[in-house]
Amino acid sequence: MIKVGVVGGTGYTGVELLRLLAGHREVEVVAITSRGEAGVKVADHFPSLRGRYDLAFTDPASAPLEGCDCVFFATPNGVAMGQARALLEAGARIVDFSADFRLKDRATWEKWYKVSHAAPELLDEAVYGLPEVNRERIRKARLVANPGCYATAVQLALLPLVESEHVDHGHFIADAKSGVSGAGRKAELDILFSEATDNFKAYAVKGHRHHPEILESLASLESASGKHIGLTFVPHLVPMVRGILATVYARITSDTDFQALFERRYAKEPFVDVLPPGSQPETRWVRGTNQCRIAVHRPFDGDTLVVLAVEDNLVKGAAGQAVQNMNLMFGFAETLGLDQIAVVP
Amino acid sequence: MIKVGVVGGTGYTGVELLRLLAGHREVEVVAITSRGEAGVKVADHFPSLRGRYDLAFTDPASAPLEGCDCVFFATPNGVAMGQARALLEAGARIVDFSADFRLKDRATWEKWYKVSHAAPELLDEAVYGLPEVNRERIRKARLVANPGCYATAVQLALLPLVESEHVDHGHFIADAKSGVSGAGRKAELDILFSEATDNFKAYAVKGHRHHPEILESLASLESASGKHIGLTFVPHLVPMVRGILATVYARITSDTDFQALFERRYAKEPFVDVLPPGSQPETRWVRGTNQCRIAVHRPFDGDTLVVLAVEDNLVKGAAGQAVQNMNLMFGFAETLGLDQIAVVP
Amino acid sequence: MIKVGVVGGTGYTGVELLRLLAGHREVEVVAITSRGEAGVKVADHFPSLRGRYDLAFTDPASAPLEGCDCVFFATPNGVAMGQARALLEAGARIVDFSADFRLKDRATWEKWYKVSHAAPELLDEAVYGLPEVNRERIRKARLVANPGCYATAVQLALLPLVESEHVDHGHFIADAKSGVSGAGRKAELDILFSEATDNFKAYAVKGHRHHPEILESLASLESASGKHIGLTFVPHLVPMVRGILATVYARITSDTDFQALFERRYAKEPFVDVLPPGSQPETRWVRGTNQCRIAVHRPFDGDTLVVLAVEDNLVKGAAGQAVQNMNLMFGFAETLGLDQIAVVP
Amino acid sequence: MIKVGVVGGTGYTGVELLRLLAGHREVEVVAITSRGEAGVKVADHFPSLRGRYDLAFTDPASAPLEGCDCVFFATPNGVAMGQARALLEAGARIVDFSADFRLKDRATWEKWYKVSHAAPELLDEAVYGLPEVNRERIRKARLVANPGCYATAVQLALLPLVESEHVDHGHFIADAKSGVSGAGRKAELDILFSEATDNFKAYAVKGHRHHPEILESLASLESASGKHIGLTFVPHLVPMVRGILATVYARITSDTDFQALFERRYAKEPFVDVLPPGSQPETRWVRGTNQCRIAVHRPFDGDTLVVLAVEDNLVKGAAGQAVQNMNLMFGFAETLGLDQIAVVP
Repeated sequence: MIKVGVVGGTGYTGVELLRLLAGHREVEVVAITSRGEAGVKVADHFPSLRGRYDLAFTDPASAPLEGCDCVFFATPNGVAMGQARALLEAGARIVDFSADFRLKDRATWEKWYKVSHAAPELLDEAVYGLPEVNRERIRKARLVANPGCYATAVQLALLPLVESEHVDHGHFIADAKSGVSGAGRKAELDILFSEATDNFKAYAVKGHRHHPEILESLASLESASGKHIGLTFVPHLVPMVRGILATVYARITSDTDFQALFERRYAKEPFVDVLPPGSQPETRWVRGTNQCRIAVHRPFDGDTLVVLAVEDNLVKGAAGQAVQNMNLMFGFAETLGLDQIAVVP
Repeated sequence: MIKVGVVGGTGYTGVELLRLLAGHREVEVVAITSRGEAGVKVADHFPSLRGRYDLAFTDPASAPLEGCDCVFFATPNGVAMGQARALLEAGARIVDFSADFRLKDRATWEKWYKVSHAAPELLDEAVYGLPEVNRERIRKARLVANPGCYATAVQLALLPLVESEHVDHGHFIADAKSGVSGAGRKAELDILFSEATDNFKAYAVKGHRHHPEILESLASLESASGKHIGLTFVPHLVPMVRGILATVYARITSDTDFQALFERRYAKEPFVDVLPPGSQPETRWVRGTNQCRIAVHRPFDGDTLVVLAVEDNLVKGAAGQAVQNMNLMFGFAETLGLDQIAVVP
Repeated sequence: MIKVGVVGGTGYTGVELLRLLAGHREVEVVAITSRGEAGVKVADHFPSLRGRYDLAFTDPASAPLEGCDCVFFATPNGVAMGQARALLEAGARIVDFSADFRLKDRATWEKWYKVSHAAPELLDEAVYGLPEVNRERIRKARLVANPGCYATAVQLALLPLVESEHVDHGHFIADAKSGVSGAGRKAELDILFSEATDNFKAYAVKGHRHHPEILESLASLESASGKHIGLTFVPHLVPMVRGILATVYARITSDTDFQALFERRYAKEPFVDVLPPGSQPETRWVRGTNQCRIAVHRPFDGDTLVVLAVEDNLVKGAAGQAVQNMNLMFGFAETLGLDQIAVVP
Repeated sequence: MIKVGVVGGTGYTGVELLRLLAGHREVEVVAITSRGEAGVKVADHFPSLRGRYDLAFTDPASAPLEGCDCVFFATPNGVAMGQARALLEAGARIVDFSADFRLKDRATWEKWYKVSHAAPELLDEAVYGLPEVNRERIRKARLVANPGCYATAVQLALLPLVESEHVDHGHFIADAKSGVSGAGRKAELDILFSEATDNFKAYAVKGHRHHPEILESLASLESASGKHIGLTFVPHLVPMVRGILATVYARITSDTDFQALFERRYAKEPFVDVLPPGSQPETRWVRGTNQCRIAVHRPFDGDTLVVLAVEDNLVKGAAGQAVQNMNLMFGFAETLGLDQIAVVP
């Protein structure tokens, strides 16, 4: 049983984390912070949690985070990098949902996030928390940078391709589609119900922050050393709450059994499910779960490979992957507390 | 550990039951029938269940139901009444999701359901499976008639009022609103996405089959003996998947603390949650859970009481209540396998 | 051809008004104001209007409103009352979408809107813009208070009842359901897509501002003089963009042909459509149109009457009714520019 | 004023056509057929049309279609090819919404549609009804094959590229997303509300029937003669009613001003709107209208071009384009009756 703190408990990834932690038998949540809701009972703010949490939100300044074994930052970019050093020194280990520690390259980070990094000395130590790539390093990490939601789906679709030599690595296309919860719980016009429902659009076509994250992470693969990886990444907004579908296109350069390639790569992964040939995964198949389900297609036996990957952006794309990382860090079974079944319909 | 069979596993209440049973540690599901999908793996038909069920659907004719301890009928009206007698004689106990055994009065049943009843001799034995009313009888029952989804929400909103003397019992109004999954998984035009989304309507204004069910059940209460109960019941279709909100109006005839009345009535109920004064429950607060949450309002301290009750029509309104009934019938903890937290957002 | 100004062109009622005015052949829109978007082309802000408006938003301070024949205020409460006097003196006539001039009783207004009224001297002159009640007065009005969206639907459902003697006038119940656009285009958490979709709730159960508006308007009917009118009004939020369905319940006190009563009352009304007996109107039947469609039910021939009324909250509930009022005020055909057909599906 | 008949008036493209024709001043609709609804008033079946159509559906066998100047087939594939010859001989001109006459190559048609073609002798005469390509031929046509919804959006995104030499013509990718109304008004499980809402998936990844249509049409361009055109086309289902967004990717082979290329190509097109640089079109911007709006992006000035095209699948993708074709065929202004403004929100 470990003591856990949650910084930023009022966003969508925060409440999802609280849902998952409430059912995790090795975890005691001892603090949940919120600047705006300090003093309010968590279960009053989120009545879906009535009967599960007796805690009230505490002000970040006075929260007993330093006695925690594990602290999750479910906060906007810029918060974790200000508090990480002190917590680490106090002996806590950290899983950060934000982008603060996802890139190794400080200049790239500052270019995309448009502020100075507050803790550049931790960038090297931070481990990018994609267990399918970094499992062993995560086990030992003090500071895990939980990947972005798009970045998780796109990388899981690309990994077997980037690690092999059968497609053009310089021209991947990831046409990704996300539910609206990916935009967070912020009072902004463009994610109002009446703006986002019954509508579909691309956004951030000029460049999305998960783009450099995907590229840096893939480039860091041993198998990718020296190779240039090129990616066109276009995110779209789907009028649904949860879910990401990434449709990834790659130009085939030499023949292989791509279905087998994916099955082999993920044979032992508890949360990556390579579907039978011909499958067309739906986001609801993974809603509320930590699964990523992947299908591999080669239409008309041509030279374009199509990979379809679905995940729940708030689970495998955020809170679930964070719990998976915590499980690894503290030596619990990797799947502990992550056995939810999708609510269908 | 009991052996369980599910008749009719391809509908929405069926797949929801399978989700709940997959996490129930005292249950082994040994047969899931479907006429149309016989031979198909359950997890191929419902990929959300991949990794949880290795069974294929079996044809009802050849399914090993008679060795089961408990058989659930998640079938349309008319199926269970044809098979119940043989299963009971083989020693199985039955929870029927359909309306076949919900009414005691055969003539009323036949008037509303427009066919002859195939097992009228079982109507008396069948226990109406609303634990908040019939808990002790359910424990001993061989045959439980699981209540209708609207009937559950409306009765839970009305029970404390019908059992007391503070409102006019002759003129209740239940303006109920349900998600579309309540209409079942049937290929019908009016529940197509393009018909039902971005739309709202009342239906069955002339008379809904849950109306006589509610009236008969309430009239059977000891406390109600001799009283006439009058109810206007208007269901509406909400463009959402799951959830019922019943807005119930009653004319106050004598003063009392209605909040306290509800809190007292449900103090020991594990699945009825009387909310603090002023609450306005939302269907998502109970999505995917077996909770019914209720708020009591008296606008402007006038003579009209407004009771708001929310439930998930597929859980407390169907599969969850069925598991709750099974728990009672087999002596398990009433809440076993029913600790899901609502997926919010 | 009249010159028209629109104050507050960036909200949902504003853009809907612009849609309707673009197709109105007697109208030239000469100014559209917005504090936040001043200088931005209207068609850049609302690309659905590309090719229809060449205007940019102008700052309210510098907009040439005083040369207008008609000025619409599609603004939040509190704006029109500050500017009305000057515009009227400049010769403009005004249709105000807000609540500023909807009540005659200043004390009631100030109690509900919680500010001092800035132009109480105009309250008497203002005409409540429900053409089905005040058509002749609207024709001559300088200042029309366009009714609230709920208020329009509920009153059209109640009018024939209040004007006759066949039901209990003291205990009407209006269970009303609205699409989310009724909450306006404001950056607020509770109308985010991820909060409002796949969800249903009641709100403002303690009291909604359209309540006193309905009561005062009904009480002002000649036929209602001296009678007390009692109403329980509970609004609900439907996960759809547009549309209101009001389900109105009345206790019958003496028999009559209610269908005929409604048909007679609205026989000459161009925008109130009494549906054939047995109809169950859907909000999409009027989406994007100025129609209110009404059905009258008497379930089981009992003593409770059920009236169902649907409208588009942004059209008959706001911008369409405003154009209808303008047509009356300027002597145009009442239906001019209001012949849209609902977009179905 | 021409006499018009509509064969198959109960589908989504049918009712949309009726909406558009009701406002077309040169058209008198004299017959609307439906096998299933013969005898039923059109306005009873579609109450959104109350007050606009007095006709009842007539059985196809007895409908007075042969006196019509123009007959629209809003029918499933296979109907028009059986009736076209007789109608043409009777002097009617035909716009067929189905795929019956969209391909010139009979073998390809029969391979994809899996039946023998009933009127192969008309394949040559039929004109593919994409006005942006075939305007002059449509004017003179007796038989117009109205393009598929996806085919329209994808071709309008590709045309300027295929007609020029700046991108690789052999490896286009069209990642297309459609609202559910594109699947038609058929009682099928997978387009039920509870299946399609809050969900996203790709479908027909192995091959969609609009694929050969796009390829044949593009190959028939004069400018494309001799060139091989390669296309990977993956359609997706969006939980919205109307709208298609096609995200098209092309590999740039030589530099040019692609924005200018598109603007030049469509400068005179009344229904193709090339948006300013940087635009990210939304499907709701064209909902209910005959517009196709297009944006051109070149992320990071790299070698991949991204073209975004939105249309309403039921208007520019079906009924609106059909009216546009009729306008051309009968010498009316091309835009007559097609000036609807998108209903936003």
